[in-house]
Amino acid sequence: MSGGNSAYGHQKFTRSRSRFTDRITADGRDGWPVEAGRYRLVVSRACPWASRAVISRRLLGLEDALSMAIADPIQDDRSWRFTLDPDGRDPVLGIRYLGEAYERREPGHPGGVSVPAVVDVESGRLVTNDYQRLTLDLATEWRDLHRPGAPDLYPEKLRDEIDTVMAEVYEDVNNGVYRAGFASGQDEYEAACAGVFRRLERLASRLAGQRYLVGATITEADIRLFTTLVRFDAVYHGHFKCNRWKLAENQVLWAYARDLYQTPGFGDTVDFDHIKRHYYQVHTGINPTRIVPLGPDLSGWLAPHGRETLGGRPFGNGTPPGPVRADERVPARGRP
Amino acid sequence: MSGGNSAYGHQKFTRSRSRFTDRITADGRDGWPVEAGRYRLVVSRACPWASRAVISRRLLGLEDALSMAIADPIQDDRSWRFTLDPDGRDPVLGIRYLGEAYERREPGHPGGVSVPAVVDVESGRLVTNDYQRLTLDLATEWRDLHRPGAPDLYPEKLRDEIDTVMAEVYEDVNNGVYRAGFASGQDEYEAACAGVFRRLERLASRLAGQRYLVGATITEADIRLFTTLVRFDAVYHGHFKCNRWKLAENQVLWAYARDLYQTPGFGDTVDFDHIKRHYYQVHTGINPTRIVPLGPDLSGWLAPHGRETLGGRPFGNGTPPGPVRADERVPARGRP
Repeated sequence: MSGGNSAYGHQKFTRSRSRFTDRITADGRDGWPVEAGRYRLVVSRACPWASRAVISRRLLGLEDALSMAIADPIQDDRSWRFTLDPDGRDPVLGIRYLGEAYERREPGHPGGVSVPAVVDVESGRLVTNDYQRLTLDLATEWRDLHRPGAPDLYPEKLRDEIDTVMAEVYEDVNNGVYRAGFASGQDEYEAACAGVFRRLERLASRLAGQRYLVGATITEADIRLFTTLVRFDAVYHGHFKCNRWKLAENQVLWAYARDLYQTPGFGDTVDFDHIKRHYYQVHTGINPTRIVPLGPDLSGWLAPHGRETLGGRPFGNGTPPGPVRADERVPARGRP
Repeated sequence: MSGGNSAYGHQKFTRSRSRFTDRITADGRDGWPVEAGRYRLVVSRACPWASRAVISRRLLGLEDALSMAIADPIQDDRSWRFTLDPDGRDPVLGIRYLGEAYERREPGHPGGVSVPAVVDVESGRLVTNDYQRLTLDLATEWRDLHRPGAPDLYPEKLRDEIDTVMAEVYEDVNNGVYRAGFASGQDEYEAACAGVFRRLERLASRLAGQRYLVGATITEADIRLFTTLVRFDAVYHGHFKCNRWKLAENQVLWAYARDLYQTPGFGDTVDFDHIKRHYYQVHTGINPTRIVPLGPDLSGWLAPHGRETLGGRPFGNGTPPGPVRADERVPARGRP
């Protein structure tokens, strides 16, 4: 998502709707057929919504089929930019700002520029920034391009349950932390913060006796909870004032989050340096000094989690993804 | 201390020196002899420097000899005020702002208004705001007015060691958290924050095998460490970005702090509501929304600490203080 200053004001915080919702499908019914090498996924490693797609792409082995551009965690007034790349340009799309792909899709488009975004490489046009749909399509429509042994992240017979869990997690947790952090008044903050922890307590109960959120295997629901949990102590606890307890103080959720973190495809996509600098330096309305905290101590992410005793088959009938491509490894300063 | 916005700016944070340093002594050599009922101690329960005096007064049983005024935790542009009292006036001094007592002491005085402050009741003049000296004098010069069984908080033969420990704790911890929180740049913040945790780690080593900081009995050194530790998770961790770990995550210091909290004269003086509202609502330069977090969960302060197994005699040859006076009890909303 945009994550910029424009995301909050004196009104109650409301997340803007995705604006470009074309789907890339196996049958190409929206004009965008699944095709290896045709599209580029633009993300920020700071952004929880984009990070869903980064994880899905890894778990499904779509790295060769769908290339990835990583934006600078600090937007400027033109939003997400490719200042991490040589000459400040994305080497595949040749643009300096993600907004240029939005502009080619719809000149003068009035909305914000957000990640994740999928861009058609040849035309340079944005295809979709629909973060709610994107990962589901990667899991289902892109199946022909999955690696051998890719897990089924959105299995048909569990979809009702997955959808229900994801809806609750979205409202109270994924978006709840933002409503708390960007609240402009005490009551609005308190309602959101209380909702975050009420839901986390319920999720902890659910996860006390089962290894994953739905069934015995990793699904899309786990990806969506993980992207918030991995940011919890680093940014949501202090910066967004979701501070009833740290994730590290909740035995069940902390072990669950570490289990996923240590699973190939999850932790190897996480850049704590990008996460911390983005939140603390971009949101000047809540951190005017732009100082980035030294904490928290991240070493605990690598500690044994003990969740294997709950059984479960992380990848179902599949296998874990292989190592991260050399050019996509998270730099040491972003890791525990 | 002042704790107001004026306490920091774009310069490196430096704590202003106490301005009024007259001493109240047994021999009255500065013109201010120790005398029951003559002075009024003005504090804020939010302020760690003032809280030292609140604790000492309780431990030493000086409540009847030295009355206490509690300022509103939220200062306005005229600083500390008595808006918690009927008609917004301190019932003994008859003033609305502590600054009036400063004004009577030195008309047009240029410095800030800080707590703790001791005021001569009859003349309404400030006597001292020297927080570093005040508690030592309560422990030594006010001895004739101590309760039976009062502990010796500053025993002669341990003074060198107490002074050394207190100097380190002052520099790195008591004041270190302020230097971190009010830093105007990243480097300044990082140096201060690293110093806080480096010192806390050393203190944890020291306290792993002994119950109190100096010897087997509570001294002034414990009071001064406690007033920072009790605020740590509530305000310094998030608001001041001292977030390498929470106090509650450090086994030794957390047990030490709970041990003191549960000792009569310590926890019964602490108002978490005043603490949180003061820091989060007054320092608009670092919390412009003025939103006060719901957390942290305070219930752990009452959990068993297990430190009795280290031995020690909390009050030496003395006894614990009796119950808090009814008119000085911390309201329920300020307690765990």
